[in-house]
Amino acid sequence: MKKRVGVAILGLGVVGGGTYKTLVSHRDFYLKTQNVDIVVESVLDKNRERLQELGVPEECIANSIAEVVTNPAIDIVIETIGGVGIAKEFVMAALKEGKSVVTANKEMISKCSHELERIAKRNCCGLYYEASCVGGVPIIRTLLDGVQANHITEMMGIVNGTTNYILTKMAQEGKDYAEALKEAQSLGYAEFDPTNDVEGFDSTYKLSILSSMAFHTKVPYTKVSREGISTISAQDIANGQDLGYTMKLLAIAKNSEAGVEVRVHPTFIPSEHPLAGVNDAYNAVYLRGDALDDIMLYGKGAGAFPTASAVVSDVIYAATHSEIKYSTYKNTAAAEGDVKFISNFSSAYYMRLFVEDKTGVLAKICGIFSKFGISIVKIMQKGNTRNENGRLPVIIITHKTNENSVKNATAKINASGLGTVEAVIRVEA
Amino acid sequence: MKKRVGVAILGLGVVGGGTYKTLVSHRDFYLKTQNVDIVVESVLDKNRERLQELGVPEECIANSIAEVVTNPAIDIVIETIGGVGIAKEFVMAALKEGKSVVTANKEMISKCSHELERIAKRNCCGLYYEASCVGGVPIIRTLLDGVQANHITEMMGIVNGTTNYILTKMAQEGKDYAEALKEAQSLGYAEFDPTNDVEGFDSTYKLSILSSMAFHTKVPYTKVSREGISTISAQDIANGQDLGYTMKLLAIAKNSEAGVEVRVHPTFIPSEHPLAGVNDAYNAVYLRGDALDDIMLYGKGAGAFPTASAVVSDVIYAATHSEIKYSTYKNTAAAEGDVKFISNFSSAYYMRLFVEDKTGVLAKICGIFSKFGISIVKIMQKGNTRNENGRLPVIIITHKTNENSVKNATAKINASGLGTVEAVIRVEA
Repeated sequence: MKKRVGVAILGLGVVGGGTYKTLVSHRDFYLKTQNVDIVVESVLDKNRERLQELGVPEECIANSIAEVVTNPAIDIVIETIGGVGIAKEFVMAALKEGKSVVTANKEMISKCSHELERIAKRNCCGLYYEASCVGGVPIIRTLLDGVQANHITEMMGIVNGTTNYILTKMAQEGKDYAEALKEAQSLGYAEFDPTNDVEGFDSTYKLSILSSMAFHTKVPYTKVSREGISTISAQDIANGQDLGYTMKLLAIAKNSEAGVEVRVHPTFIPSEHPLAGVNDAYNAVYLRGDALDDIMLYGKGAGAFPTASAVVSDVIYAATHSEIKYSTYKNTAAAEGDVKFISNFSSAYYMRLFVEDKTGVLAKICGIFSKFGISIVKIMQKGNTRNENGRLPVIIITHKTNENSVKNATAKINASGLGTVEAVIRVEA
Repeated sequence: MKKRVGVAILGLGVVGGGTYKTLVSHRDFYLKTQNVDIVVESVLDKNRERLQELGVPEECIANSIAEVVTNPAIDIVIETIGGVGIAKEFVMAALKEGKSVVTANKEMISKCSHELERIAKRNCCGLYYEASCVGGVPIIRTLLDGVQANHITEMMGIVNGTTNYILTKMAQEGKDYAEALKEAQSLGYAEFDPTNDVEGFDSTYKLSILSSMAFHTKVPYTKVSREGISTISAQDIANGQDLGYTMKLLAIAKNSEAGVEVRVHPTFIPSEHPLAGVNDAYNAVYLRGDALDDIMLYGKGAGAFPTASAVVSDVIYAATHSEIKYSTYKNTAAAEGDVKFISNFSSAYYMRLFVEDKTGVLAKICGIFSKFGISIVKIMQKGNTRNENGRLPVIIITHKTNENSVKNATAKINASGLGTVEAVIRVEA
């Protein structure tokens, strides 16, 4: 017997529109392949034009959230509004009426998942959010149902398409940041106010969601160290390439006996690393588990249909698994206080300095590094282009050290009169 | 309340041993993170030394399959014996007693899944085989529960680590096939009799399993066109590199209105394609869906622990999903006769010829291609190394054409006295 499942869609923006179209055009396909008849019963959006443009039938247009959540024909509510305000209000209303919720809302899930999961659990319904991270790439399903045999020890992700597009253009075409950003904006890859993407906030939300799930704990987004790409120079990217490194804005999470470290920052990785070849608006997540070793999932991280793929796959999952799998409620499991977060994390470093053109200067600078316990792999003059003070460019690559040592050494050098540290970029192996 | 699940392991080879170790060492971890206590109740292997080496307690050593399948404490039976004979017999015995089965056996699943799935269905138990394809990479879970919103239109996989290792060495170090094979054998990547891997049989089994699932139909392994790598020359790999191509042994499946095409053969792909960077013993599967566009999953395709990761993840899935999801039974859905298979498939081609060193020969050869409706993108003399008949090497790249036309043109050229076709390699965009 075919099962009938009624769904509502809240918000017909890019993702909501793609979801509506996918559900309507694939209804027969799901009936045939999944044995379930998924019917869009109700759509809520205040933009009448958009409703008409998508051809939503009059009888499916809802006038209020109350009408949606009290409709007994609706089993699953899809939230594609975004942000925390009204989206959260609507999701809570749906969960309280026992409707399972599928959402693409990374900000809401990152900020409120523990609260929402408690409500879902209490009302015996599900909360699914595959679409909140990395578009159509099923990274959350993989963490929940594909690699759950593993202690996940490490995760490195390119989880923001805007910044990856900008960095790719800077690397491949030598463009500077402002120029690459402008191009990304003109193509619709970056917003008019790009802050959320370029300063790493978006990646921070996603890392909080993914690392909470990977580490079976709660990683609040506020615990993520964050640095964006707006101060990155094309020169540093090119210097990195010469040294065999590719620059990516990585979302990094590590889990060990010592604690959890979570950070989003521009990172040099070896150019032969699988993540180094992830270009343009593509996203990827690289995972390390104690049994599986390393895997990577790669794909389109955004866009109407790739994201709709994740939303609708969650809807099908919810529709075809009659039991609620409480282990999806990762964020309620551990109290925040139980987790030790490491802010003084370890890394290797690339540093670019301008130094005085005098004999013995490099030796003195090496002395400062040594004083802070930092070993140097490589120190080299890089080109002859002096800065306005007549100082010469020097690149230093360090062995693994830690944030505090590098900050202290940087302050000491800047105060020494020997030179100035112009750029500090973490290097991951 | 914690749930208790008893498992048995049949066969303690590489994967069985890795599975045993993983289940024992992670028992507390699964209890904590999955709310399920997975207990190895019984192990069946005739090798006493291996049982001792792994420290299997005396009371867990079974003496017969009957003892295992009639043990009421056992819920899930893990089959890691391999092959079709005794493995199939044991799996059938378990399913008939209502035990769910988790297996890593690609040959058995490829050849018998429809039969086994019917038995599983009749006895209300599950049949899980994530570990049969691509080691720890959760490609089957992805197809079932991660991208099921999509019509999957295309799949291209590097699903055999042995051949990928050999081709990587040939490409990176210019080694010839025999030398690279010997190295792979000495490292344990290739078996003493490497036929199953190098001639593409292993990839054929996996493609049959994955394409059946992706296309919601039954793709018998006997329908897969197969060509191995044993006749590939380092020269062709190097020529491809000069033209911007990387050679991989790909398992390709395409699904369209016209029918299904499935094939395993050495393939040139553009060197910037995500699959081109998958080197050594790594595997990857590249998928195209109508909503999600393209994604790729990458990881270790073999080895004790990566494969154990897939086995144990299936065990956890079976243990934490109380309902049997009948949509996993893909191979029972469609009768073989319903599917139209395309054997005269379309592709672009790389061809290497030795031709007579006479004016007008290339024009005549181009005429033969033209006669068979094949358009040429590029024709060029490649080097000056004549063969024993004093003929010169020529490379031809064709536009998209089809198998039959290329076979006919090849026969015609070989019979013409103008030259001989030495290598034909398909090119995918």
